[in-house]
Amino acid sequence: MTDFSHLDPAGGARMVDVGAKPDQQRVAVAEGRLTCAPQTIALLRAQALPKGDVLTVAKIAGIQAAKNTAQLIPLCHPLTLSHVDVEFTVADDGIGIRATTRLTGKTGVEMEALTAVSVAALTLYDMCKAVDKSMSIGGIRVVEKIKK
Amino acid sequence: MTDFSHLDPAGGARMVDVGAKPDQQRVAVAEGRLTCAPQTIALLRAQALPKGDVLTVAKIAGIQAAKNTAQLIPLCHPLTLSHVDVEFTVADDGIGIRATTRLTGKTGVEMEALTAVSVAALTLYDMCKAVDKSMSIGGIRVVEKIKK
Amino acid sequence: MTDFSHLDPAGGARMVDVGAKPDQQRVAVAEGRLTCAPQTIALLRAQALPKGDVLTVAKIAGIQAAKNTAQLIPLCHPLTLSHVDVEFTVADDGIGIRATTRLTGKTGVEMEALTAVSVAALTLYDMCKAVDKSMSIGGIRVVEKIKK
Amino acid sequence: MTDFSHLDPAGGARMVDVGAKPDQQRVAVAEGRLTCAPQTIALLRAQALPKGDVLTVAKIAGIQAAKNTAQLIPLCHPLTLSHVDVEFTVADDGIGIRATTRLTGKTGVEMEALTAVSVAALTLYDMCKAVDKSMSIGGIRVVEKIKK
Amino acid sequence: MTDFSHLDPAGGARMVDVGAKPDQQRVAVAEGRLTCAPQTIALLRAQALPKGDVLTVAKIAGIQAAKNTAQLIPLCHPLTLSHVDVEFTVADDGIGIRATTRLTGKTGVEMEALTAVSVAALTLYDMCKAVDKSMSIGGIRVVEKIKK
Amino acid sequence: MTDFSHLDPAGGARMVDVGAKPDQQRVAVAEGRLTCAPQTIALLRAQALPKGDVLTVAKIAGIQAAKNTAQLIPLCHPLTLSHVDVEFTVADDGIGIRATTRLTGKTGVEMEALTAVSVAALTLYDMCKAVDKSMSIGGIRVVEKIKK
Repeated sequence: MTDFSHLDPAGGARMVDVGAKPDQQRVAVAEGRLTCAPQTIALLRAQALPKGDVLTVAKIAGIQAAKNTAQLIPLCHPLTLSHVDVEFTVADDGIGIRATTRLTGKTGVEMEALTAVSVAALTLYDMCKAVDKSMSIGGIRVVEKIKK
Repeated sequence: MTDFSHLDPAGGARMVDVGAKPDQQRVAVAEGRLTCAPQTIALLRAQALPKGDVLTVAKIAGIQAAKNTAQLIPLCHPLTLSHVDVEFTVADDGIGIRATTRLTGKTGVEMEALTAVSVAALTLYDMCKAVDKSMSIGGIRVVEKIKK
Repeated sequence: MTDFSHLDPAGGARMVDVGAKPDQQRVAVAEGRLTCAPQTIALLRAQALPKGDVLTVAKIAGIQAAKNTAQLIPLCHPLTLSHVDVEFTVADDGIGIRATTRLTGKTGVEMEALTAVSVAALTLYDMCKAVDKSMSIGGIRVVEKIKK
Repeated sequence: MTDFSHLDPAGGARMVDVGAKPDQQRVAVAEGRLTCAPQTIALLRAQALPKGDVLTVAKIAGIQAAKNTAQLIPLCHPLTLSHVDVEFTVADDGIGIRATTRLTGKTGVEMEALTAVSVAALTLYDMCKAVDKSMSIGGIRVVEKIKK
Repeated sequence: MTDFSHLDPAGGARMVDVGAKPDQQRVAVAEGRLTCAPQTIALLRAQALPKGDVLTVAKIAGIQAAKNTAQLIPLCHPLTLSHVDVEFTVADDGIGIRATTRLTGKTGVEMEALTAVSVAALTLYDMCKAVDKSMSIGGIRVVEKIKK
Repeated sequence: MTDFSHLDPAGGARMVDVGAKPDQQRVAVAEGRLTCAPQTIALLRAQALPKGDVLTVAKIAGIQAAKNTAQLIPLCHPLTLSHVDVEFTVADDGIGIRATTRLTGKTGVEMEALTAVSVAALTLYDMCKAVDKSMSIGGIRVVEKIKK
C-alpha cells in the first residue's frame, strides 16, 4: 500500500526511524533554474561572468545549505555528507543549477541536493535583484537517485 | 545606469552598506508551487488534509527559514523581522505557497519571503516524496513589494 | 569510584572522549509537563485542540531541538540521530510531553530526549502565554534508557 | 475576549505582527531548578564547587541559548538582546537557576529568560548525569516581567 | 579604574548590559595574515589566482562568520550589521586579510571584524592545506575603530 | 603531482569526495596565542585567574566552534567529533591555547582544532578588550596530526 512515510495513520507528522536500514552508498542529483530577462544575462556577461564572483557565491551557499538541510527541513535526519557539488549552466535567459550529493549512510540524500539547488538559486536571485524585478525560480526536481 | 548592487565594478561580490538608508515599513509577498501527481493530492486529502500536520509542518519550516535568511544567503543583511506568514492553497495537482514578510528597517524583505516559500516547498516535497517521485517546485517569485 | 565524567580532577570542564566506545543501539525516553490553568486548557480545547496547530508546532520544535542538542549543550557530542518522536497528553490542568530518541552510536541519547521535551514545553508556553501568566514547566526527567 | 495571540480563529499557528508596537524597555526574570540527590551536591561541593567550571559552563550555555531563542521556538521574533544574565543558588538537594533578559524593543523577553533557564538546567543535568540517574528539572516559570 | 567589562568583581563572566548606550555609527577594521611557503603562493598564482575561487570562498566565509559572531563568542551581543567587507592582498609568502564591519547601534563591532578575518584565514588554510603543511595564521588585530 | 584538493583544474572551488576513504582514528593538535600587555595579564591574575571564569568561557567557546566547523568553513565536511579539548598556558605577556580533536572517520580533523584555537582566542580577546587595545592573535598552526 502506498504510504506517506512522514505521516502516521492519523495524518500526524513523524520522523521515520532509519536505525534498521543498512549503510549504503547513496547519490542524488537535483536541478533547477533561475529564469531572468535576457538583458540581465547580458549584463552579467559584461560585468561578472564567467570570471566574477557570482557563480562562486551561489555555489558556496548551495554547499553550505546542503550541509544544513536537517536544520531547515523538520523531518530530515542529520547526515554527514561525504560530497556536495553545485554546477551552473548560463543560458541566454537564465541560469541552470545542478547539485550532486553523496553519502554512505542509512537514508537518501535527495533533500540535500534539492536544498542546495534552492539556496543556490535564491543566492543568484539576491545578486541580480537590483537589475531585474521579474525573475523566477523553477524546475526544481530530482533527476537521479542511486543506491548501491 | 543599471547596477548589480552586490557586485563591484570588477564582478567581485560585496555586501551592500545599508547603514545610510532610512528605517521604513517594508512588506514583501512571494509565491511558489509544489506540483505533484493528482493521486498524491488525493492521498493527502484522504489521509492528511485538511486536518493533518502536513501544512503546519511546512508553515513552521518556512517561518523558521525566513528568520534564518541571512545565514543561508551570503550577502543578505541580518534582520529582525516583525512578522512572517506562510499560507497554502491545495489544488488538484499541487500546493500553492504564499509567504508574507514585514519589517521596519533599512532593507527590503523579499529574500526572506522567497526563502520562506522555498523551504516550505522543500518541506512539503520531503513529506510527499515516499509516494510521488515526479514532483517539482517552481514559480517562486516576488508578487508584491511595499516600502512606506 | 563515583565520577563526574565531564569534570577533570580539578573540577575543570571536559568533553568525554567516546572514540573507544562501541557502536550500540541506544534509546532514551524523557518526559515533562507544562502546567497551566484549567481555563487555558478549556480555551485550547474550544479553539485549537485536538485539531489546531498547537501540538504540531511544539512537536516540530522539539524534534528540531533534539537534532540541535550538541549546539545547545556545550559538552554534548554531535550525533546523527536515527529517530526522534515527541508525543503529548492533554490533561485538564496541563499538557504532558514525552520524547523518544534513537541512535546507533557511541554515546547515549538522553540529553537529546530531555532537550526535545524542554523545547517542546517552551513552545507550548509561548503559544499560551497571552492567556495564562501562571504557567510553569516541570517534571523533566529521563524515564527510560536502553543500550543493546 | 481572551485570545491566543499565536493562533488564528481556526486554531492555526501564526506569528504575531509586532511591527506597530512601540520600542520599550523590557525586562524578564525566569527561574527553574535542577533537583538531584544530596550526595550529588556533596560530590560537586567536594570536587567542583564553588571554584570548578560547572556553573560557568551552565551560565554560558544559558546565555547562548537566550540569544538563540528565535531559532528554537518557531513563533518567537528575532531579537537583539541588550543583556542576559544567569545566576545559580546551590542548595543541599539541587541547584536553583535564575535568568534575566533585557531589551529595548517591540516584544517581551520572557521566552528568552525561560530558554536560558531551561538550557542552563539541561547543561547542569548533562554534567551530573554520570553520578545521578534520578535528577529532574522543574519549577521553570516567569517571576518578573517589566515594560516601561 | 581599569575594568574588565565582561567580568564581575569575583572574576565571574558577565554579558555587559548595553541597553543604556546610545545608537551610534560604528566602524571597525581588523587585519590578519595566512603565512605559507612561497611555492604555495606560486602554485595558487599558477592555478587559481587571481581568477579562481579561492579568495571569493574565503570572503564569503568571513562575511558569514561576521554575521554569526554572537553565536561564536559567548558574551558578544547579537547585532544587525549594516555592512561587512573582506579584502585580500596576495604577497609572495602569504595572504593578507582585512575586514571592515559597520553598524548603527549600541556596541562596537571589532569582534565581528576580527571574527571575519579569523574565519577567512581558516578557510584559506583549508583550501591550501593539501599542498602546504607549514602554514600559520597570525597578526590578527584591530587596526581602526570609529564611533561617531 | 602537488594538488589543491579543494580546487578543480580551472581554479574552481570544490568539496572533496571523501566517500571512498576508510574510517580511521584521527587526531589533530593545533596551537595559537593571544599576545597582550603584561599589565593585562597582571590584572587577570589579580582579578580573574586562575579561578575566575575567563579560561572556562574561552574553552567552551572553542569546543562549541570545533563542533560547528563545517558550518563556518565552506568546504569542510560535517563530522561527528568524538572528543575536543582546549587547554591554556598563561604567560606574562599572553595566553597560549592548545586544542586537540579526535574522530574515527574519513577525513582529518585539523580544521576543527584550528577553529577551536581561533575562537577560543577571539573569546579571550573579547573578555580583555576593555582593558587592552593592543592585543593580537597569532601563531595559529597545526602541531600534530595522527592517522592510524
